[in-house]
Amino acid sequence: MKLNFQLKNGKYGYKQGVAFQGNPVLSVYYDGADDMGIHLEMTGQGCRLFELHTSINWHELFYRLVYEYEVNITRLDVAIDDFVGYFKINSLVKKLKDNEVTSRFKKARHIENIVIEGGETIGHTLYFGSPSSDIQIRFYEKNVQMELDIDVWNRTEVQLRDLRAYVVAQVIADDVLPLGEIVAGILRNYIQFRIRRRQIKIKKMAFGSLLVELFGLCST
Amino acid sequence: MKLNFQLKNGKYGYKQGVAFQGNPVLSVYYDGADDMGIHLEMTGQGCRLFELHTSINWHELFYRLVYEYEVNITRLDVAIDDFVGYFKINSLVKKLKDNEVTSRFKKARHIENIVIEGGETIGHTLYFGSPSSDIQIRFYEKNVQMELDIDVWNRTEVQLRDLRAYVVAQVIADDVLPLGEIVAGILRNYIQFRIRRRQIKIKKMAFGSLLVELFGLCST
Repeated sequence: MKLNFQLKNGKYGYKQGVAFQGNPVLSVYYDGADDMGIHLEMTGQGCRLFELHTSINWHELFYRLVYEYEVNITRLDVAIDDFVGYFKINSLVKKLKDNEVTSRFKKARHIENIVIEGGETIGHTLYFGSPSSDIQIRFYEKNVQMELDIDVWNRTEVQLRDLRAYVVAQVIADDVLPLGEIVAGILRNYIQFRIRRRQIKIKKMAFGSLLVELFGLCST
Repeated sequence: MKLNFQLKNGKYGYKQGVAFQGNPVLSVYYDGADDMGIHLEMTGQGCRLFELHTSINWHELFYRLVYEYEVNITRLDVAIDDFVGYFKINSLVKKLKDNEVTSRFKKARHIENIVIEGGETIGHTLYFGSPSSDIQIRFYEKNVQMELDIDVWNRTEVQLRDLRAYVVAQVIADDVLPLGEIVAGILRNYIQFRIRRRQIKIKKMAFGSLLVELFGLCST
């Protein structure tokens, strides 16, 4: 298979780069300092492009990355997409304010967009952790963000860095758990939504049902 | 007066820079392409530093910048600080959701931080306009942002770019209006908060009283 990569500018301290089909969503950077090697970057769209043009699956890719190439993984985003509407993001916000959430995070950040004419709220995002921390968990309305005419598309996204990214990459490489279970496991470990101050397994149930909806696993 | 500037790295395409007393809040960048001249950057703290070390006031500085040096102003932030609590930022959010706001902006964005243990909301920010647009207006709780033990410190900040920044710089240079009136005028022009769907001059009243509280005028 001949792959079409086009030259582009460098980034992250690398002097040069190439983008697959000229599209920066799937790029490789090189020509940095002696110990910098090369840097592969794939956004969410880059992951879809990769799936289109290769026959290997994600498990196989991660196996090669972790065990054959022994790469250094600086960031890995894994996500669950919900097209059914198992929960509303605003109802998670309400649970937070009602003190019905237990978490390893100390603070959460809620962002809502308001249409001034009419006063309607059209998008909710809920963050746990800061963008630069080792782990950030984001709940957001992908349909609103992308201005799509779809009733429900809620994305639950876990952004991992460095050692945490590597550990999850290894679990994917080992193929011991389905991707959805990995994400659900991280979520259960970090955030528990309770009902009436008595902890029940709502989170587990919700994400258990969500596994079939698993859509994206991306390394960006 | 001998001013102490220390060398630092370049930025914005300028190869070199100096920082006043080695503090990057007040920096000058130079050695760019032939037509790039030099670039002065002052953050809010840089403005305070400037006030400490010079005898000229803001009107005089802007007069020189606009009419003598004929500079190109790419960004200018002007702000009103409220230590009294003329309004709560959350009550502005409520007005938006109750459809009691008229604005030249189409959308607003509300951000709130929630302490997970207890569910308390500890900081509200309200944005009109995007960070990259010609004008953005921000309402935020400065005491929360800076983790200060002050009951009330609400900042209303107008961030202007390019031509809009230049026009306001000219008004300051011409010294025809107090700074507070300039900011209040911009706010009245862009956002009107109404009571019970009947437009009254609440905004004008609130910001009129705020003029004495004027704290910062910054070019960053």
